[in-house]
Amino acid sequence: MTDQNIEHKVAQQTPESATQTRRAFLKGGVAVAGGVMFSQAASAGYDPKAAVAGYEGQKEITDPLARPVERNKLGYGVRTYPYGMPSKYEDHVQRRTLDWLTPDTYASITMSPLHQLHGIITPNGLHFERYHGGMPEIDPKEHKLVIHGLVERPLVFTMEDLKKFPAVSRIHFIECPANGAMEWKGVQVDSVQWTHGMMSCSEWTGVKLSTLLKEAGVDPKASWVIPEGSDASAMSRSIPMEIAMDDTIVAWAQNGEALRNEQGYPIRLVPPGCEGNMWVKHLRRLYVTNEPLQHREETSKYSELYGDGSAVRFSWVNECNSVITYPSPDFKMDGPGRYVVKGIAYSGRGKIKNVDITMDGGRTYHEATLTSHVLDKAWTRFEYEFDWDGSELFLQSRATDETGYTQPQAPQLREKRGTNPVYHRNAMVTWRVHAWNSDRAGVIDNVQF
Amino acid sequence: MTDQNIEHKVAQQTPESATQTRRAFLKGGVAVAGGVMFSQAASAGYDPKAAVAGYEGQKEITDPLARPVERNKLGYGVRTYPYGMPSKYEDHVQRRTLDWLTPDTYASITMSPLHQLHGIITPNGLHFERYHGGMPEIDPKEHKLVIHGLVERPLVFTMEDLKKFPAVSRIHFIECPANGAMEWKGVQVDSVQWTHGMMSCSEWTGVKLSTLLKEAGVDPKASWVIPEGSDASAMSRSIPMEIAMDDTIVAWAQNGEALRNEQGYPIRLVPPGCEGNMWVKHLRRLYVTNEPLQHREETSKYSELYGDGSAVRFSWVNECNSVITYPSPDFKMDGPGRYVVKGIAYSGRGKIKNVDITMDGGRTYHEATLTSHVLDKAWTRFEYEFDWDGSELFLQSRATDETGYTQPQAPQLREKRGTNPVYHRNAMVTWRVHAWNSDRAGVIDNVQF
Repeated sequence: MTDQNIEHKVAQQTPESATQTRRAFLKGGVAVAGGVMFSQAASAGYDPKAAVAGYEGQKEITDPLARPVERNKLGYGVRTYPYGMPSKYEDHVQRRTLDWLTPDTYASITMSPLHQLHGIITPNGLHFERYHGGMPEIDPKEHKLVIHGLVERPLVFTMEDLKKFPAVSRIHFIECPANGAMEWKGVQVDSVQWTHGMMSCSEWTGVKLSTLLKEAGVDPKASWVIPEGSDASAMSRSIPMEIAMDDTIVAWAQNGEALRNEQGYPIRLVPPGCEGNMWVKHLRRLYVTNEPLQHREETSKYSELYGDGSAVRFSWVNECNSVITYPSPDFKMDGPGRYVVKGIAYSGRGKIKNVDITMDGGRTYHEATLTSHVLDKAWTRFEYEFDWDGSELFLQSRATDETGYTQPQAPQLREKRGTNPVYHRNAMVTWRVHAWNSDRAGVIDNVQF
Repeated sequence: MTDQNIEHKVAQQTPESATQTRRAFLKGGVAVAGGVMFSQAASAGYDPKAAVAGYEGQKEITDPLARPVERNKLGYGVRTYPYGMPSKYEDHVQRRTLDWLTPDTYASITMSPLHQLHGIITPNGLHFERYHGGMPEIDPKEHKLVIHGLVERPLVFTMEDLKKFPAVSRIHFIECPANGAMEWKGVQVDSVQWTHGMMSCSEWTGVKLSTLLKEAGVDPKASWVIPEGSDASAMSRSIPMEIAMDDTIVAWAQNGEALRNEQGYPIRLVPPGCEGNMWVKHLRRLYVTNEPLQHREETSKYSELYGDGSAVRFSWVNECNSVITYPSPDFKMDGPGRYVVKGIAYSGRGKIKNVDITMDGGRTYHEATLTSHVLDKAWTRFEYEFDWDGSELFLQSRATDETGYTQPQAPQLREKRGTNPVYHRNAMVTWRVHAWNSDRAGVIDNVQF
């Protein structure tokens, strides 16, 4: 490598005036009392001399005895925290539960405030929660993961062992299959936190499950992997070998730090695109076998009785779906004018290809812009700008994924599945915006087609 | 859309046995006392019948009067928090400052614990901090952003106004140009938190600066935008119009939630790939002009006196760089065997193309695997698996970005820039692993070439 190669980018970027001797711009300095005075001066109008003066002011307080006090007076230092928290002005941004969903003050579920989130990353403190049997508090030094069953070498891993394997980091959404259940049941809930808040999206880091399975040596007869959690329900699901060997991760980190306890500290299973209950938390065991477990969580729970009398189990994948987070029932329109529709689209099958917006309940559609990174099995942000004339709107979003699958209207889904299902509602959601000249001017509510 | 289209994915995925009447798998149930007993039973070995029995147990406690107590005894519910925090076992994961870097107990800088982070997202609570003049605590309802100078229409925006514009969400790293300064100065600091902890990587959401500038109507004569912060130093830098009109964002959110106060709540400038001090926090003003400001922060500060006597200012971009976070001086090797080198690469010019690892201080290189999403001007994770034979190692990583630029060895950079610089050290870092048969067996320290 030549010297020129080291610096070539800087040289390309530097404007004509940028390389000069330091003397030229230091001699213009005029001393003023300090940074605060400069700050006030700067508020009145820009003055390059004042900028240099500000520097001189900073030098005036280098007396070591005076500095600790003066620095604080001038605001040069601040009290910081080893682990920071949001501004006090953001206290209203909370995950919440509905009183009637839980029989006591202890929650088995809380939902993410989707209407207050931005982008595709859910901050760990606001990630939705779902408990099937309490929340163990596990010392990672004591935790072990067992692989046994149809394997050549049954193995026991400590956390330290696991972290010695190659790892991957991937951004994926997780969604409870009951997300949207209230809409299935015709319950009108006027918040996107209640209609869709049982999902979040994070970067997950861990070892690929396939790496661990290869280490144990999977018997060719094996076709299922049964993960088991350390919670009181010993949460279990049957994972087909194809999913286990594909992109499934045994994750110890979310969004850069250790898993939160609510999310299965110290490790959870991450089968991307699959329903949340398969993402077994506090993972302690992987049983390799040639038949599914028929666990209560995949028989009596998380299975569906369809309209034609058949029951569907093992409906693992969260199909292509989307929701408009603004305007939504958590907000109110403030008069005719320019608005930007904002929302989240996602598919358990891959990337989002496009999202269309309708204002008239599905008669005409307009293509939205995808405004975030577009990643495999991850939330994708969309926006659509429009001028509201004050008339009544029936707002819907319709996502299509890279397989070509498009989410259905609710009546289409109901015709196929009947009225019994609770899970996997991926039909388009409708927000009605009341006309500006009506009694409920600009109010937004959830209507069901 | 046909009904078949709605369901075709489920049908493809469902195994032969999955669609059956519910009766078949419910009749196998055998009642036991409850979830906890099932959990204990399950620990001893898998039994599909026990799984169904667990469900029956759950049904036994549906008596409304008994439920609140029983549910808690059985661990079905948990106490949750509206905004969660990490596990108590992760208390040691903290951003920190070095006592000698700040003259009192108030910090003007804290560094991210890179050796304890995972993936490419830095959790907001562990994001590095840098204060040039205190931390204002701004009520977003009171905050305004002014655009004035060489524009057709000077504008004042409230936070509500800004959020009505189309937004984008992008994952980008931010790095203080002084990151690596201790290495420049030959200070041996045996932690990657001290050598490289003045950087973090987040998803930033906000309106593109170009959108706001177009709204104001930029005079064709204008070539610079001067952002100003609301801190006591009225932090300012000169942003050339090309960067302002490219991918720069006026951001109100990081990693899905409102900006943290430490990061400039309620809005900061995000010029991707540029040095951290240009990411002006608590942004209150954008002054459009035809010359740079010559602010103290780009004349006396954040400029460099090179070996040949020239001073380089406006060296905005953080060039391609990388660091090995494991093994690193925060750890100790525990004997010969298999190890996975892990680290972070990034470039202010675009995407990372590849990373090479050397164990012998640059004589031979091995290509690492990129293990995260590879995004524009974002951290990229790399790993390289190797068998340590116990001999002394001189570990380095060398990143190349999509422009073809490769980070230099330290002597190359020093030859060009001399010994005076503090900023923009993107030379390869060396971790020496002491031989297993030496007095300092497996100890890792920072050596300087």
